[in-house]
Amino acid sequence: MSETELRHAVGIDFGGTSVKLALVDERGKIRARRKFATKDVVGVEGWLDRVEREVADIMGKEGAGKQLVGAGVGVPGFVDFERGFIFDLPNVPGWTGVELGSLLAKRLSLRVRVDNDVNAMALGECTFGTGRTYQHAVFVTLGTGVGGGLLINNRIYRGAHSMAGEIGHVSIDMNGVQSPTGFGGVEQYVGNRRIVEQMERAIDSGRPTIMLDLVGGDRSKLSPKTLKDAADQGDAVALELLNQVTDCLAAAFASIAYVIQPQAFIVGGGVAEDAKLLFQMLRDNVKKRLSPFFYRSLEIKPAELSSDAGVIGCATLGLLE
Amino acid sequence: MSETELRHAVGIDFGGTSVKLALVDERGKIRARRKFATKDVVGVEGWLDRVEREVADIMGKEGAGKQLVGAGVGVPGFVDFERGFIFDLPNVPGWTGVELGSLLAKRLSLRVRVDNDVNAMALGECTFGTGRTYQHAVFVTLGTGVGGGLLINNRIYRGAHSMAGEIGHVSIDMNGVQSPTGFGGVEQYVGNRRIVEQMERAIDSGRPTIMLDLVGGDRSKLSPKTLKDAADQGDAVALELLNQVTDCLAAAFASIAYVIQPQAFIVGGGVAEDAKLLFQMLRDNVKKRLSPFFYRSLEIKPAELSSDAGVIGCATLGLLE
Repeated sequence: MSETELRHAVGIDFGGTSVKLALVDERGKIRARRKFATKDVVGVEGWLDRVEREVADIMGKEGAGKQLVGAGVGVPGFVDFERGFIFDLPNVPGWTGVELGSLLAKRLSLRVRVDNDVNAMALGECTFGTGRTYQHAVFVTLGTGVGGGLLINNRIYRGAHSMAGEIGHVSIDMNGVQSPTGFGGVEQYVGNRRIVEQMERAIDSGRPTIMLDLVGGDRSKLSPKTLKDAADQGDAVALELLNQVTDCLAAAFASIAYVIQPQAFIVGGGVAEDAKLLFQMLRDNVKKRLSPFFYRSLEIKPAELSSDAGVIGCATLGLLE
Repeated sequence: MSETELRHAVGIDFGGTSVKLALVDERGKIRARRKFATKDVVGVEGWLDRVEREVADIMGKEGAGKQLVGAGVGVPGFVDFERGFIFDLPNVPGWTGVELGSLLAKRLSLRVRVDNDVNAMALGECTFGTGRTYQHAVFVTLGTGVGGGLLINNRIYRGAHSMAGEIGHVSIDMNGVQSPTGFGGVEQYVGNRRIVEQMERAIDSGRPTIMLDLVGGDRSKLSPKTLKDAADQGDAVALELLNQVTDCLAAAFASIAYVIQPQAFIVGGGVAEDAKLLFQMLRDNVKKRLSPFFYRSLEIKPAELSSDAGVIGCATLGLLE
């Protein structure tokens, strides 16, 4: 197939901090990138103006002569996928009740799909990344919270009202930490902020650990990556804590496996990159929590697309028939 | 449509105690019933002989002149639905590695489908019972254990290896009761035997309760139904215990709802029949454990088909195109 015959789509990864755009071909390869700060545009109209301009720029340069079949937008919030409608973006003011799909389709004269950002990532990862060989998989992203996307029968499954895959709220302790989403939700234990709090408590306990040394004594620089680095260097306190964190995740994974029995969990997000030890601990803890019938046919793997997962996933939405 | 034009199937509900057969029409109506004790037949051949004879008897009498399109078998164990293959029936000796689908198809000269008994019930309930208006639902059956079947996009979802829907093993406490399937599985708290143990502990505590009176002082007759009856009569100890039991179930339901966001949970099994108070408590406890976005669009309903759920569900397998 010649370059010009390949189908292409624009992926628009709409984050709270920045909006990233990429032209991606049907083999998952990025052909052009653009980026602007979310705060640099005002309101929905400002956003549409800027995106229209960036897409025109891409198609006039790197995309010239290429076949563009659609665009996909991933947004940090609740979406009705069928209608391309944004209910609300909790971290971006002014985006409540927006018919983004049809508004952007008019601007670009293109078919546009809008989805939750984690679903878009899951779709990208299951089309071009680690998940491409599976029909049934759970995509998990570790960060401030724990996000999820479900691949069922080779399609993203959105549940009754586009909200399925909220893995971070799966309870690991019915009498555990209370939050607006219930009791004992796993992200109350393994969200980035929670991990750092546990690191600080471990440091304060006075047990010898190199964690604070790794950030030059500056507590504000402690992050889950510090924990991972310290554990990799054999730090006993860090190893213990990393084991706890992965065990909490494992408890949620086991419950999910018993419900939908996926072929694989695909885990992405900063802390899951370059994290051999973390994955080993995660697998060991899941094994302890699952019947052998379930464990032996389950894979737990790192995501592949890394920081490009967002734009590639969004473009994959645009490539969907 | 005249009676003779209706499509019919034979449902065979293969239980550890008895095998029930029924001729069911495509409107879900039972036209004939037969039953024999599981221990009355010897081995797979004995079972096939008897089933073949019973089906011939039905079709010579009540089924005469009716259009028979298939048969479905529900079995208490692990099945490969695609192949009609039984891996193992833990409670029925001699049924390991049996190609039941093709063996029975040859005997009956009919298309035969074989599934896990709970999946068959879920299918029946979602075709002819409470679930008939849903595309996405979770069917739950309460008994010795807690079984489950998933309806996703209007079809029973079996997961990667035909084992999805093992709701009884969803953990409600990662440090809870240990079993071969992990830690804190919900059926370790709400299985029939576990409920009776808790009733006995409550009685032994000396707090005033009518539970023992309801069974004439005979502890061996205590059952979850006793608990329900005592609670219905306002017994404080029973109310407290029923609340605990429904809250454990609610914790599992909330986790499942966050993962797959069904339209409804449909709850069957003896204890869920005629159980208004139980359902009210279950709904209140789920509400406490779910974000309002999830709770307001979720229904929690009793199953409708009652003791016929098994044979009707099996026949529904036989009616599938």
